[in-house]
Amino acid sequence: MTTDIDPKEELARYRASIDNFDAALIHILAERFRKTRQVGELKAKYDLPPADPEREKEQIARLRRLAEKSDLDPEFAETFMAFIVREVIRHHKSIRG
Amino acid sequence: MTTDIDPKEELARYRASIDNFDAALIHILAERFRKTRQVGELKAKYDLPPADPEREKEQIARLRRLAEKSDLDPEFAETFMAFIVREVIRHHKSIRG
Repeated sequence: MTTDIDPKEELARYRASIDNFDAALIHILAERFRKTRQVGELKAKYDLPPADPEREKEQIARLRRLAEKSDLDPEFAETFMAFIVREVIRHHKSIRG
Repeated sequence: MTTDIDPKEELARYRASIDNFDAALIHILAERFRKTRQVGELKAKYDLPPADPEREKEQIARLRRLAEKSDLDPEFAETFMAFIVREVIRHHKSIRG
C-alpha cells in the first residue's frame, strides 16, 4: 500500500512548524539579550572584567554536548554561539562606550 | 535604604538563566533543522524549487515584527535568520549532492 501525499500540503505543514520554532527562537533570544544586558550593566557598575575566557570555554563545551545529544551538528552549535557572543560584546561595548 | 548585593552572586544567577536559554535555543534549533531536513528531502523528491524568495521575504518581515514586539533589535533578528538560512542551504545542497 502506498500513501499519496500532496507535496505542497506537506510543505505547508512543515513550514507552519518552522514558523513556530522561529517565533520561539526570537522570543528566547530577546530574553537572553535582556539578561546579557543586565550582565553588562552589572560588570560596568562593579568594574568586573568584560570577558571571562574560562566561562566561555565551559559554555561552548556544554553546548556542543547538548547539540550532539539532540542531533544538531556541534560545529554549527559552536558557530551559532560565537555569532550570538559577537552581538553581546557589541552591546557591552556600547554600554561602556 | 540601600540593598547590598553581591555582584558575583548576582552574576552567577544571571549566568544560570543564560545557560537555560542557551539549552532551549540549541534544542529548538535541533528541531528546526530536523524540519528543514524534511523540507529538503521533500523538495528533492518532488523536484520543487529549492528557494522561495516570496516565502523568505514574508518570514523576515514577520520575524522583524516579532523582534520589535519582544524588544529585540529587528536588525539582529534579520541577521540571525540569514545566518540560519545559510546553514539550511548548505544542508539542502548536500542532500541534492
